[in-house]
Amino acid sequence: LSVEIIPVPGIPEIVPGDDLGGIVATGIREARISLQDGDVVVVTQKVVSKAEGRVVPEQPDGKARWVERETVRVVARRGDLLIAETRHGFVCANAGVDASNVGEGLLTLLPEHPDASAERIRTAVMATSGAAVAVVITDTFGRAWRRGLVNVAIGAAGLPSLIDLRGTSDATGRTLEVTVMALADEVAAASGLVMGKSEGVPVAVIRGVRSDGPNLPAAELVRPPDEDLFRSGEGGPDAAGDGG
Amino acid sequence: LSVEIIPVPGIPEIVPGDDLGGIVATGIREARISLQDGDVVVVTQKVVSKAEGRVVPEQPDGKARWVERETVRVVARRGDLLIAETRHGFVCANAGVDASNVGEGLLTLLPEHPDASAERIRTAVMATSGAAVAVVITDTFGRAWRRGLVNVAIGAAGLPSLIDLRGTSDATGRTLEVTVMALADEVAAASGLVMGKSEGVPVAVIRGVRSDGPNLPAAELVRPPDEDLFRSGEGGPDAAGDGG
Repeated sequence: LSVEIIPVPGIPEIVPGDDLGGIVATGIREARISLQDGDVVVVTQKVVSKAEGRVVPEQPDGKARWVERETVRVVARRGDLLIAETRHGFVCANAGVDASNVGEGLLTLLPEHPDASAERIRTAVMATSGAAVAVVITDTFGRAWRRGLVNVAIGAAGLPSLIDLRGTSDATGRTLEVTVMALADEVAAASGLVMGKSEGVPVAVIRGVRSDGPNLPAAELVRPPDEDLFRSGEGGPDAAGDGG
Repeated sequence: LSVEIIPVPGIPEIVPGDDLGGIVATGIREARISLQDGDVVVVTQKVVSKAEGRVVPEQPDGKARWVERETVRVVARRGDLLIAETRHGFVCANAGVDASNVGEGLLTLLPEHPDASAERIRTAVMATSGAAVAVVITDTFGRAWRRGLVNVAIGAAGLPSLIDLRGTSDATGRTLEVTVMALADEVAAASGLVMGKSEGVPVAVIRGVRSDGPNLPAAELVRPPDEDLFRSGEGGPDAAGDGG
């Protein structure tokens, strides 16, 4: 019951207006990958944003102005680095505004509705392949307290982004207390093993993922404010004080 | 250039004093997995803690007392949930003190030196298999701002836990600005796809990971305090204010 992560090479440069779902389906077929029911097709944010026209010129306003427009809440700031909440609820560097893997003088913004983007790609890939696949759209985020970036899910369709194991038993027969696994983020991070950021491989297929449970979009991965211990105020660092 | 994640079933219940490296090597052989140079052997914290005797009775002191002993800094608290920094620098629920997958009335604590644990397992597996493998020890952590748990690396040997892509070019030829990928965390999260927490599969082999670069232990994944935007005070949420 192995899981396989298969890169899909040969995806052409994407431009605004492209039928990304059709291009992804064609790219998978031309890579001689025969999609199966349950396969998860992973697509990077960068190509989704390009296809959807979420590409903007850096000038004359400058990157900071675009970051400001994409930000609904500043979470932290140091020097040029802004950690911001987007209108989707994602907390990430520069509200997802990014200059990598896009033409000189251009920036990409996050897709407006990445779960809907995932659903559209899924529909196109299912129509072409006949296989009941899921789709995850990834972006590369930093984390609090840990160095380095990992890919996380910003959009998902056709799988449970969260899998709730509460009430099931562990290997010793004891009921698990709090174990909701972020399946879509596991899938996203795994895809990073074949999608080095510099390599121009924006699509991968992951085969063998066990994804029982109701479909849940990536929006479910956003922690609601009332569960968020890392906002200012009650429950946050200042309220907790210093135990050490 | 696919990556494969292969679960290793049949690992017996681990007790304090067990030669975990030998047991892992035997388990891989008995699963008829022929290790190759570059394979990454992933082992869960739970079995490492058991083998190293990091198992304690919950009573008479209670779990809270053990959590306190394992905590060097309280990061946040709400009700029974404590987010704490361990002496390794990891920030996680209950400082890693956990009651799942261990006998009734018992708790596991994190390994004292998980990078050294990884190195010991690596030495044993290399001696048995003759293959130049890497080892990653994982635990299941929550995240700020995102719901659900993912596996992260708490120990690593034989691979670069971080891969620094700064100075390399992206697919458009532009130099990447800030792209240090957390390879060991990608590996850990990927292993979660075959190691459901309830399933008693504490070992997996990941084949095909590209891990060029100098070996870096998981300790390198800990963000030093002076880079940490999510401490109280300067640069933290209160200093940044609210942009929304």
